[in-house]
Amino acid sequence: MLLLDFSELLEKKLSGERWSEEDVKLLVRLVSSGRLSGQQIGAVLMLIFTKGMDAEEIVQLTSAMTASGETLSWPDSLRPLVVDKHSTGGVGDMVSPPMVASLTALGLKLPMISGRSLGHTGGTIDKMESIPGFNASLTAEQMRGAVMSDVGGFIAGQTEAMVPADRVLYAARSETATIRSVPLITSSILSKKAAEGISALVMDVKFGRAAFMTTFEEAQILAESIERTGRGYGMKVIVFITEMERPLARCIGNAVEVAEALQVLNGGDAASAGLRELVARQSGCLLRLTGKVATDEAGAAAVRNSWSDGSALKAMRRILVNQGVSEALADNLCEPGQFSVQEYLSRMGREPLSVTQLSSPASGFVSDIDALSLAKICHQLSRPERLGGKLDHSTGLELLVVKGDAVKQGSPWVTVYHSDPLTERQRQGIDACLQVTKERPQVLPLIREIFPQH
Amino acid sequence: MLLLDFSELLEKKLSGERWSEEDVKLLVRLVSSGRLSGQQIGAVLMLIFTKGMDAEEIVQLTSAMTASGETLSWPDSLRPLVVDKHSTGGVGDMVSPPMVASLTALGLKLPMISGRSLGHTGGTIDKMESIPGFNASLTAEQMRGAVMSDVGGFIAGQTEAMVPADRVLYAARSETATIRSVPLITSSILSKKAAEGISALVMDVKFGRAAFMTTFEEAQILAESIERTGRGYGMKVIVFITEMERPLARCIGNAVEVAEALQVLNGGDAASAGLRELVARQSGCLLRLTGKVATDEAGAAAVRNSWSDGSALKAMRRILVNQGVSEALADNLCEPGQFSVQEYLSRMGREPLSVTQLSSPASGFVSDIDALSLAKICHQLSRPERLGGKLDHSTGLELLVVKGDAVKQGSPWVTVYHSDPLTERQRQGIDACLQVTKERPQVLPLIREIFPQH
Repeated sequence: MLLLDFSELLEKKLSGERWSEEDVKLLVRLVSSGRLSGQQIGAVLMLIFTKGMDAEEIVQLTSAMTASGETLSWPDSLRPLVVDKHSTGGVGDMVSPPMVASLTALGLKLPMISGRSLGHTGGTIDKMESIPGFNASLTAEQMRGAVMSDVGGFIAGQTEAMVPADRVLYAARSETATIRSVPLITSSILSKKAAEGISALVMDVKFGRAAFMTTFEEAQILAESIERTGRGYGMKVIVFITEMERPLARCIGNAVEVAEALQVLNGGDAASAGLRELVARQSGCLLRLTGKVATDEAGAAAVRNSWSDGSALKAMRRILVNQGVSEALADNLCEPGQFSVQEYLSRMGREPLSVTQLSSPASGFVSDIDALSLAKICHQLSRPERLGGKLDHSTGLELLVVKGDAVKQGSPWVTVYHSDPLTERQRQGIDACLQVTKERPQVLPLIREIFPQH
Repeated sequence: MLLLDFSELLEKKLSGERWSEEDVKLLVRLVSSGRLSGQQIGAVLMLIFTKGMDAEEIVQLTSAMTASGETLSWPDSLRPLVVDKHSTGGVGDMVSPPMVASLTALGLKLPMISGRSLGHTGGTIDKMESIPGFNASLTAEQMRGAVMSDVGGFIAGQTEAMVPADRVLYAARSETATIRSVPLITSSILSKKAAEGISALVMDVKFGRAAFMTTFEEAQILAESIERTGRGYGMKVIVFITEMERPLARCIGNAVEVAEALQVLNGGDAASAGLRELVARQSGCLLRLTGKVATDEAGAAAVRNSWSDGSALKAMRRILVNQGVSEALADNLCEPGQFSVQEYLSRMGREPLSVTQLSSPASGFVSDIDALSLAKICHQLSRPERLGGKLDHSTGLELLVVKGDAVKQGSPWVTVYHSDPLTERQRQGIDACLQVTKERPQVLPLIREIFPQH
């Protein structure tokens, strides 16, 4: 009976018909049940990727996926303040943790359920777990407690019981080359966000060689799908379409990105300007959506103020302690002051075995930084032979230049934190990711569109 | 590395590019290796189904699949006589065993590797295994021995080592709703046939509600693909496109179909005229392709002669004994004479627990017999609760009428061989498969096209 039902679902879409709400519910029930074979999961993923789903089918899929498991809900008085942000994934994309700290400092509630590294992109959970003691596996009760208390939020992976259908589908997306499917991305993201019980969402859809959507046009299609589907739920959704050709942050890696996040929360200009801009503007947008401020700009200003007055660092300290980090370490990491990446690594006990400085082979201007290739090299560095291929949180890259910077021949441009000896090939590979030209290149803004306009 | 290679293959076709010969070889190597996950197998099957493959890709896929495992080969003197037949599958489609007997009686060699039941269609191997003692699991050595000896052929499943890529893909086709894919059908059939080392093939592509290709147009597309791909190998291929709206034979089931096959080999008109026609004409075509006769018609006449002179029955006896059936049982089954289906069931020791006669509810002409619905009911009957859902070879249906026959109200029209009590619903279900009209209906020929024309 099961096989027949499932085959009939596939046949229906194969014949060009759309799925009804009942069909979609049946599909999600079958997927969640764990009774479908791997072959069947792979086939339905590829079917959805190649045949697509219309707007209504996507809303129904998302809704059925949310309903397939445990959800969080909030008192009516609190719900308007419960918000979140999600990114389709990039390189040096360390926006979420500083945002949770900044916005909880300003009175919003952030039940942030994040993912792990997918493909070449980093995962917020992996990054946060590089902080010794940090527990990203919260129960639903712990999640509720964090949001309802003065901590105001958390950063954690989904519970076993949340959105089980997504768990099954998501796990197979990478190996089946179906990551880029608009219906699958939309339903995967929004079903998890809806399960958090949020009222507003800022979505960062990345495009470029280091994003899953390589062109702006693909990003627009996904942005529209996410906004429309979120609206179908009564969720306020604002989508930022941002460039992901170059890394967003100066740092790429796990502990090194945590270091840069802490630099953001200290104000100052140690962290990348692009990263600081995205945290401030996307957070500012959420402050406007919840009515805390009148405009996005006022929101961004409030966020930057939470950095200079130390309240965002205090909020980060509360989050870390609430999720298992010792008071001593949390104090140490959230101490106000302009500290270097290496200083933070040292405070976390994540000093890498070796630090190598690479230098520019020519004088001129940095005209390109290839985020995808850098991410692939970082991935290699993070699985050193020394640990038999296990994850080493302390490895990564720190870019000392950004696109458009003037460089001199021989001046340092990348710091490499590594564990295995750096091979000549890796060294050349990293250098090849940075291009130098004689003329100063045009540097386009990171944020290309905010959708829908308001 | 493996994951990357495989994902790149999928990405390439997803982006609209065709696969090169190297790509196809890599795909088959990955599939045969057993290192791909179920999800990956399901995804690639659905990708091939939805995106298709061009003629050259199909030849390359078939060739790589054949080369993925053990193959049979024959002395040059013998090879021109080594032939086979394959059908895309239908209901009451009991052509292969009488063909092997008739053609080996006439000096051809038939290394017939067959499949098991797929979906609602019957499988030659399952049918033959209803004969007590029959061994359908031959080693390559036993296969060679059967063809080289005076037995002249066999009916068996593929060995573990033959076409391992097909083994992996075929097993997942039904559950992933990718049975109807032209590249997958073509490569699956022809890779196995090529592994038999045959020089000529008659292919029966069925269309209609009880076939995998429901329309004549779909059948034509598949027929062309098979003929073209076979030609790419230097194999002579003739494709019959035949109707599969009504059952081909009078009998549907395992042991009951064996009984009807034995009726065919006895000559006379006990077996369905359609079944006898297809065995004679498709066998006749193979006699012409091997140069044994000048025309298809002369070939069909030679085949019918092998039935009336008893030589085909003797050939069947040799095949049965060679594949493990006792001499006594083989003598008993291959005794010349016009015996009823029930008599053969009794000789095989396959008497069903119950036999129920159903009768026409009205007078008129049989205007339709729904092969698909009958096959589904037969499938139910064959897995009785009495045996806890295990296969019962003795169950099935025997139609006492064919399309176009005049019937009187209350005259018997179906004999049901069953094991569990026949429910009212099953009884009504069977009766509902036969339509009676006042006017004599038009009965179109079974064979609609022979391709290519010669």
